[in-house]
Amino acid sequence: MNFLEERIQKDGVVKEGNVLKVDSFLNHQMDVKLFDEMGKEFARRFEGCPINKILTIEASGIGIASVVALHFDNAPVVFAKKAKSINLDGEMYTAEVESFTHKNTNHVIVSKKFLSKDDHILIIDDFLANGCALQGLIGIANQAGATVEGIGIAIEKGFQQGGRMIRNLGYKLESLAIIDAMDASTGKITFREQQAAHH
Amino acid sequence: MNFLEERIQKDGVVKEGNVLKVDSFLNHQMDVKLFDEMGKEFARRFEGCPINKILTIEASGIGIASVVALHFDNAPVVFAKKAKSINLDGEMYTAEVESFTHKNTNHVIVSKKFLSKDDHILIIDDFLANGCALQGLIGIANQAGATVEGIGIAIEKGFQQGGRMIRNLGYKLESLAIIDAMDASTGKITFREQQAAHH
Repeated sequence: MNFLEERIQKDGVVKEGNVLKVDSFLNHQMDVKLFDEMGKEFARRFEGCPINKILTIEASGIGIASVVALHFDNAPVVFAKKAKSINLDGEMYTAEVESFTHKNTNHVIVSKKFLSKDDHILIIDDFLANGCALQGLIGIANQAGATVEGIGIAIEKGFQQGGRMIRNLGYKLESLAIIDAMDASTGKITFREQQAAHH
Repeated sequence: MNFLEERIQKDGVVKEGNVLKVDSFLNHQMDVKLFDEMGKEFARRFEGCPINKILTIEASGIGIASVVALHFDNAPVVFAKKAKSINLDGEMYTAEVESFTHKNTNHVIVSKKFLSKDDHILIIDDFLANGCALQGLIGIANQAGATVEGIGIAIEKGFQQGGRMIRNLGYKLESLAIIDAMDASTGKITFREQQAAHH
């Protein structure tokens, strides 16, 4: 097991309905030293990619993306914002994102000032399940004409279809922990085997 | 001028109605190397305070708080979340926060699991103007019985009352840049003099 899988095993809580609670270290309380390890590992996995910008989505992607970005040279973070209203003035890239947790649809926006065809983007997010948020971020990158160099995810629910779909589309998707099964009654979490993280 | 004042002077845009746009480096696109400098400076200003946790509020506080937290030993970040609905089941600390920008009131929540009377908190946020967000965060810390060791702000609008009120209450409030006046017609920004940042 790598460092993130070990932490999920130790502090993650499996709930009914394929819910994994990692709010003690990932998305409410945030262990930034763990994020720093994740940054080192993403830098290793995306070594040689000409990444000049990190793209993420509010709120829980922002902390990870910010610490990860310190491991790339001159790569600011741009985060997609949840729109209060749909802005049709042409200054924003927009995407629709369905939320599985909240059972609703949000529009997210990125100012056109901060993404262009010259950008080589690494997309970072905390979770990948059905892939709706990620599709929105890729859609925004495509609207800008930017190149998606890769996608780095902390935890992928491998038993949902998001990861397979994104890989089928040809994107370089690296998830630090891929969960193939979890059992709320026993708390058991089964991780997909992957090459050992350099830790 | 310190490093943040210089950056505001260079890349900030003054708009009518005392609006300062810093979305190219602080709160939409985020220069994490600048946040790293801010972390060094906050670590210097709060040296000797027994800080074990950083508290902030979604969304734009999260990136700064996460990078700043790397400069403190074993201090995870907890961010107050905008509540979808008011949760009355007793598992959350809650506060009301008025938004000046959006002219509405949000409830923000922090899980009781992540703040307690044993915590010594540094509150971090990007902006301080009328102080509503900060009052909410202090209120949540007080509900938990935690000790607020200090408050670190990137940009304070010194011509609004939030900073004076918080200092009058006796909190150790450190703002890296305090703006005493700005003029949308000329773009001129006047900073309050403070001791030089160790840079």
